[in-house]
Amino acid sequence: MSKIAVLLSGGLDSTTVLARAIDAVGEENVGAITLRYGQKHSVELEQAKKIVEYYGVKYHKIMDLTSVFAGTDSTLINVDNPVPSTTYEELSKMTGPSATYVPLRNPVFITVAASMAMIGGYDELHIGVHAEDALNDAYPDCRSDVIGALGAALHIGSYYKMKLLAPFNHFTKADVVLAGLELGVPYEYTHSCYNGQRPACGVCPTCIGRIEAFKANYEVDPIEYAIPIDWRS
Amino acid sequence: MSKIAVLLSGGLDSTTVLARAIDAVGEENVGAITLRYGQKHSVELEQAKKIVEYYGVKYHKIMDLTSVFAGTDSTLINVDNPVPSTTYEELSKMTGPSATYVPLRNPVFITVAASMAMIGGYDELHIGVHAEDALNDAYPDCRSDVIGALGAALHIGSYYKMKLLAPFNHFTKADVVLAGLELGVPYEYTHSCYNGQRPACGVCPTCIGRIEAFKANYEVDPIEYAIPIDWRS
Repeated sequence: MSKIAVLLSGGLDSTTVLARAIDAVGEENVGAITLRYGQKHSVELEQAKKIVEYYGVKYHKIMDLTSVFAGTDSTLINVDNPVPSTTYEELSKMTGPSATYVPLRNPVFITVAASMAMIGGYDELHIGVHAEDALNDAYPDCRSDVIGALGAALHIGSYYKMKLLAPFNHFTKADVVLAGLELGVPYEYTHSCYNGQRPACGVCPTCIGRIEAFKANYEVDPIEYAIPIDWRS
Repeated sequence: MSKIAVLLSGGLDSTTVLARAIDAVGEENVGAITLRYGQKHSVELEQAKKIVEYYGVKYHKIMDLTSVFAGTDSTLINVDNPVPSTTYEELSKMTGPSATYVPLRNPVFITVAASMAMIGGYDELHIGVHAEDALNDAYPDCRSDVIGALGAALHIGSYYKMKLLAPFNHFTKADVVLAGLELGVPYEYTHSCYNGQRPACGVCPTCIGRIEAFKANYEVDPIEYAIPIDWRS
């Protein structure tokens, strides 16, 4: 049976990946790796701990990479640059990296987690990227060709020991939520808001995407929002 | 003109890459990134500082990734596992990862350095891997196909901003030394010994490779060794 490490942010997508891995091989064969990197929404780390505890996952490593990204102007990290408020329509029309893009964050995350997973005795690393992450190159390091190239590098570079899987690579975020609802994921524990607010701000790019994903499934998101959301629109 | 960041260990190969980059674009357009990762031979970090100072390179970042590799049984890091002594003949006959292989070290190093380089305003990352690193899969993460895949991931994932170059990818170590001698590299400042000894032990895999590379060029290595070396054999 495969031993699966999951790159767990504490957000909606990676928590659904965790649930899927546990459903496949059991919590005793699943580990979680969570990264601190100077994100304004570091509250997600606390949520990741709650999720790991909920599922009874024993192996949970939290690695601090804050100094790697020091000096970036990404609005996800730099306190002088506020996370932009946006709308779903605006998001769909943009081209090129989002203001919240962190330079090469995902290649760093994936290689660091793969190394830790290998040392921890795992033979697969599962990650939560989905098709909308790379839409219009908003997060170019989430593109399928990038994930494919990293998967090749990690498999060959580990002497064929480590496999990289992105099970939701071709899913929309709404598809991810649908999969998670079927798996009974406790979405009330997950955190998405890039402003790090609980109740969530409801106007940053990830809040917008999350709200739309629940609406597309005719479901109400169990987390609280700071603004009224019309779940029937 | 390109702005080039060099992944500088303080060893022979990466110092030659640094010299080559400075020769091409001038020291004012070159930066260096050095990684601490729990290596027994962390004395190389001090040598890296001397090399950067020698060349007048202003941008030099040292990043600590020790915790990423904690728990590995690699003899390069684990104090309970001694670095093996070997011979050139033995090294040439081995197949598969060396006892000194650190799980996915190079993919981690390359992605972290590329992210830092991008944040630092550089558009190329140059690394010192050469053909013998991957010989018989001793360090499978130095293989050309791995470097190629990482280069693709970093270029696309950075929205075409960051290029990865391994100028000595198809060089033997003797070829690297030849290139460095022509560039006047101060090899007396470089450190290779995996046992972290100065004078160098002369019997670990990197000492062996270094000695052979100078011999192939009919040159005497300017660093000191703890054992007598017959440079004419």
